[in-house]
Amino acid sequence: MNTVSDASVKNSLDAIFQPKSIAVVGASRREEAVGYAVFKNILMGGFQGIVYPVNPKAESILGVRCYPSVLEIPNEVELAILIVPAQAAVQTFRECIEKGVKGAVVISAGFKEIGAEGALLEKEIACLSLEKGIPLVGPNCLGVINTDAAVAMNASFARCSMPKAGNIAFISQSGALCTAVLDYAKGVNIGFSKFISMGNKANVTELEFLEYLGRDEQTDVILMYLEDLSHPRELIEICRKISGDAGQHKRAAIQPPKVKQSRAVGAGHPKPVLAIKSGRTLQGAKAASSHTGSLAGSDEVYTAIFAQAGILRVDSVDELFDYAKAFSGCRLPSGNRMAIVTNAGGPGIMATDACVRYGLEMASLSDKTRAELKKYLPPTASTMNPVDVIGDAQHERYEAALKAVLKDKQVDGLIVILTPQAMTDIEEIAEVIGKIVSKSKKPVLACFMGIVDVSKGVAILEKWKVPHYRFPESAARALAGMARYAAWISRPRTECKQFAVDQEKAQSVFQKAELEKRKVLTDFETMGLLAAYGFPALAMELCKTPEQAAAAAERIGYPVALKINSPDILHKIDVGGVRLNLDSSKEVFKQAGDLLARIGKKMPQAKILGVTVQKMSSKGREVILGIKRDPQFGPILMFGLGGTYVEVMKDVTFRLAPIRQLGAYNMIHSIKGYKILEGVRGEKPADLGKLEECLERLSQLAMECPEIEELDINPFLVYEKGRGGVVLDARILLRNAG
Amino acid sequence: MNTVSDASVKNSLDAIFQPKSIAVVGASRREEAVGYAVFKNILMGGFQGIVYPVNPKAESILGVRCYPSVLEIPNEVELAILIVPAQAAVQTFRECIEKGVKGAVVISAGFKEIGAEGALLEKEIACLSLEKGIPLVGPNCLGVINTDAAVAMNASFARCSMPKAGNIAFISQSGALCTAVLDYAKGVNIGFSKFISMGNKANVTELEFLEYLGRDEQTDVILMYLEDLSHPRELIEICRKISGDAGQHKRAAIQPPKVKQSRAVGAGHPKPVLAIKSGRTLQGAKAASSHTGSLAGSDEVYTAIFAQAGILRVDSVDELFDYAKAFSGCRLPSGNRMAIVTNAGGPGIMATDACVRYGLEMASLSDKTRAELKKYLPPTASTMNPVDVIGDAQHERYEAALKAVLKDKQVDGLIVILTPQAMTDIEEIAEVIGKIVSKSKKPVLACFMGIVDVSKGVAILEKWKVPHYRFPESAARALAGMARYAAWISRPRTECKQFAVDQEKAQSVFQKAELEKRKVLTDFETMGLLAAYGFPALAMELCKTPEQAAAAAERIGYPVALKINSPDILHKIDVGGVRLNLDSSKEVFKQAGDLLARIGKKMPQAKILGVTVQKMSSKGREVILGIKRDPQFGPILMFGLGGTYVEVMKDVTFRLAPIRQLGAYNMIHSIKGYKILEGVRGEKPADLGKLEECLERLSQLAMECPEIEELDINPFLVYEKGRGGVVLDARILLRNAG
Repeated sequence: MNTVSDASVKNSLDAIFQPKSIAVVGASRREEAVGYAVFKNILMGGFQGIVYPVNPKAESILGVRCYPSVLEIPNEVELAILIVPAQAAVQTFRECIEKGVKGAVVISAGFKEIGAEGALLEKEIACLSLEKGIPLVGPNCLGVINTDAAVAMNASFARCSMPKAGNIAFISQSGALCTAVLDYAKGVNIGFSKFISMGNKANVTELEFLEYLGRDEQTDVILMYLEDLSHPRELIEICRKISGDAGQHKRAAIQPPKVKQSRAVGAGHPKPVLAIKSGRTLQGAKAASSHTGSLAGSDEVYTAIFAQAGILRVDSVDELFDYAKAFSGCRLPSGNRMAIVTNAGGPGIMATDACVRYGLEMASLSDKTRAELKKYLPPTASTMNPVDVIGDAQHERYEAALKAVLKDKQVDGLIVILTPQAMTDIEEIAEVIGKIVSKSKKPVLACFMGIVDVSKGVAILEKWKVPHYRFPESAARALAGMARYAAWISRPRTECKQFAVDQEKAQSVFQKAELEKRKVLTDFETMGLLAAYGFPALAMELCKTPEQAAAAAERIGYPVALKINSPDILHKIDVGGVRLNLDSSKEVFKQAGDLLARIGKKMPQAKILGVTVQKMSSKGREVILGIKRDPQFGPILMFGLGGTYVEVMKDVTFRLAPIRQLGAYNMIHSIKGYKILEGVRGEKPADLGKLEECLERLSQLAMECPEIEELDINPFLVYEKGRGGVVLDARILLRNAG
Repeated sequence: MNTVSDASVKNSLDAIFQPKSIAVVGASRREEAVGYAVFKNILMGGFQGIVYPVNPKAESILGVRCYPSVLEIPNEVELAILIVPAQAAVQTFRECIEKGVKGAVVISAGFKEIGAEGALLEKEIACLSLEKGIPLVGPNCLGVINTDAAVAMNASFARCSMPKAGNIAFISQSGALCTAVLDYAKGVNIGFSKFISMGNKANVTELEFLEYLGRDEQTDVILMYLEDLSHPRELIEICRKISGDAGQHKRAAIQPPKVKQSRAVGAGHPKPVLAIKSGRTLQGAKAASSHTGSLAGSDEVYTAIFAQAGILRVDSVDELFDYAKAFSGCRLPSGNRMAIVTNAGGPGIMATDACVRYGLEMASLSDKTRAELKKYLPPTASTMNPVDVIGDAQHERYEAALKAVLKDKQVDGLIVILTPQAMTDIEEIAEVIGKIVSKSKKPVLACFMGIVDVSKGVAILEKWKVPHYRFPESAARALAGMARYAAWISRPRTECKQFAVDQEKAQSVFQKAELEKRKVLTDFETMGLLAAYGFPALAMELCKTPEQAAAAAERIGYPVALKINSPDILHKIDVGGVRLNLDSSKEVFKQAGDLLARIGKKMPQAKILGVTVQKMSSKGREVILGIKRDPQFGPILMFGLGGTYVEVMKDVTFRLAPIRQLGAYNMIHSIKGYKILEGVRGEKPADLGKLEECLERLSQLAMECPEIEELDINPFLVYEKGRGGVVLDARILLRNAG
């Protein structure tokens, strides 16, 4: 996919979001027409520049003089909005270019989403915009909105009026979702800085929008709805910068292909990026591909990309805005320890459950805090966390409790719960919360349970910009999201390591395989390649006859294992091609003969190179390390526990290569069965350092050897801490061969 | 805990919910007093009977003549509402009894929830109500509400007025949550049949309320918020009846202790019961215990109880009402295959993801349906599922699509999504949906995305009683809840089996242990007991010397295992007390001597009875079966996969004993690693029938042998289908001994 060139991004997206003049090409007098809605929205939205309707059949629209063509507008036009039939779009865009526009938004549908014919038109218009360096949003989109009072542009056909201004930016790949989100936001009084419908992303994609929003002073939080993604490594880089990475790290030599060096976005403060990526399930992905005509990668890979980019992934629109409210209104917590202040025991328990479920800790209040609480609360009140100010609490009690708890150094954040009981002075309590929160350096989320009775209180909370929720679960989830993001931006910054490896050896293996037109490497090539990249391997020899095997076993030392060696047999165990724990030359001789005979008979079509004699390893914990080259996303690294049971549980984790040291650490720590590596039942911890190193070596291998299509080290045996590990078995498939 | 006797339930709760006359003892003229709020709510709520305020210091309240004591009311009083200090409550209740009331609601706080002193008062009042057979709701509650127009009683101090009438009943153990729920329901226009704050449940508990609501004609759906539960087996029985079990099954001889034979509740149609049980996490449970003064059982056990009762367990209030809306407005689906009709691709994908995530299948539409859809939809519309009627769809297109899809026999239910796009005629579409849904035998949930623009459409959906949601995820979750409940009520009804077992043998084992004051059974006793209950065991002999062991091995046949036999050693492997795979008498002799010597030296304090010689089993899949006696809930059955890895994953499931055959089946099928039992990598399926049987035998053992505190069969080896399995190792701990 082509995207606008780097140099032009800043200027060009300024033309999209802050044009001084707009031409609405295809503006209409018919009230049901999209061209009417767009023009009306710009005009009535209070646009601060000049807007020109273009329509050869109309004299004027909504009282504004109309032009038959964009070329006939006597003044400069910065931004063109196109609402013309797809067939006419390319020609119209050419005219706009001729007119000298600096940006375009193509609202018209009828492109890629309708099939091959539309895709062709889309390619044409995309090439044109790329060639001329004119950023083009869409086609097939709802438009863009900038609420900044200096611009005040609603260049969309959304049915509602200009949304409220706010510090949240929303980017969507679904125009229809935009209409729903705008309506939802209006209902819950949420404001936006920029509102962007990306449409088919023919030219401008989420990358450029993110980069722009990272620098946008009106934007503090960025929300995205995505159905696919084309440049994951660039996304990771940009999002890391938006989250505060200044890009000043020394770079290791290895670099992902095609990474653009973006300018310092997000230089001010970190801006959280939250995203919904739909099509998570197989069925959903199928629906998505029939909807957008694009093929999305597997969900695990998206999870990996988002983890590496520091994007908080959410599953639904309400979750998205629950988080956004918290991020847009509060400081980040400096830790994980949360307190709850409530006038109701039950909801306090529910909030506690939810906090723990979402990974937060319940703060343990200091004796000083508890003594302070006892001073102001009745004897039946709980001064433990959750702090229960009791059902008849009024604002004084809330005030005392909030002040005492927020002062506690063991508390990183707070949820304050109100249920509308008979004595509850809801509005006064809301005022008290607002005043305290406005001065607090710790995040405070309010949960006013209910709708009607609490509504005036909620309005007061909004006045004070206190994030508020109807139910404790949503508040706890949002607070947990903040804590995760806070942990992300304060994570240790590590680098991609560059190990000294034997690249020549690797190349010679690939060349030999290519010469022989083989797609599968032999065991010896595989082990040799891994050894060249510094992986620990077991002593082994390839033997053609039982005699040779017996002699090799004597050299290697007992016990040994025998494995059939054939480029045509990938899963040796499945065909009975492995014999373990042989401890004499006699036994090796006998079993080697048997193995060769049986497999030869069982798989007469397989080319058998001999048997591999390999030193038996001592016992260790089995893990799996792998590389898979995704047709769309390039090399993906995989890590998981070994063993049949765990394979059934699918306890594996993925990352896009390359990974930094922290990435390797996170992979190891993010599997469910991590405890097994830590040691259970008195077992000592496994050598996690060695695992980390091997994952980093794997990452380097994946980046330096594009010849590899798939690599599986299964199992890798990891020994106790300090004792390393060993590759027990591995297989490598090459690309473009066979 | 004491509960009202069976015989009195029906009459007594009629007195609570349908009194002809009420005395509000502790009614007040002070507007901020609870006694004012309660009296006002009854009076202004339009109560159809007579209400008498009782207060020695007032002449009248709100214009109604006041009485100094309940005894001085000249007429009959059916229900007494007590709002007096806890210290005076017992005496006041005595007067009410003297007056002849048939029920009481004690709103006053100051009982168990404040500590020992209050608990004593609570016990006194509970005993009194039990003794006199007068049902008492509370203490420490918000009150009860009956919206039935013939009664119209709001006997609560909720700050909002009489809630809207509806077919949903709500029972809560938290009064404060009641206030929040009432306010929430008012905001989203949900109505209730009965609204019940249970308070401390001193006398009337959820059991009696459930039984009452099961028969209540106004109630179709029952919601509960629980913090603890005292009579799980009764709850299971009652909920099963409410869900349509007529209680006509032949009962097996074994019965849980203390099961009350309830009358046929829910005789009409099945009523779904949904519950939040808070205190799920350790920290939440701690908060709950400090709040209610009660100790709740472990969360897994609650999950088991709810599964056995057919209660849908949810985690939050909004989830609870999302489900309730669906259940109260729709027919149940007859299967799992759902369709989606949408005017927006993105939300369609999100709905698909959510359906699959929540366990639904995406229906595959028949050719006939697709042909029908093609007739009415534009060529770019998707006639696959999700059906995309395209953004410019108006009501005609929705109508055609809904009719075609609902007619399809491969569709069991439907979600219809609307986003408010420029051309969308929201109100007309809502009307169309309403008309179609009112005639549909399949459930249809609407998702009108947004708030403001869609509000008029939503009002129309409410007029037609179409359950509606803001986001597709909530609709999908609710639909999945309906499908699960539909599967539950149409599940095969099985019985508790009664196997012929050797109870005498079991008793002799317990007696011997009791005589010897042993808490731990020996291996031989354990295996003997299991054999007496029909579990398959391996041939084994206890030997005191290496010579005996060698001789025993000759009798048993090779290979054999040796295990140290000591009542003081529970985990034999951990102390190195096991030798496997011995295949000659010489080897057995040598290893037995070594074992006895080493363990004797390593654990000099352990009483060593000898070594057990046991036949080595053939290979099978390891599972764990167990019994644990919960101090609160009695015997709990456990099932899980064996092996260290799986133990780390905590892949186990629980049920309260006794279980029916279906319960055993469900236990086996509900573990995450179930696939391993089905067979992976070409393995044949395990003998699931034998596992089922063993779980049923375990259930019988648990019920018939209260002497057992804990039993662990770990591992049980299960062989391929038809080949049974075998107990490899087991241990039994007894109660009240040692």
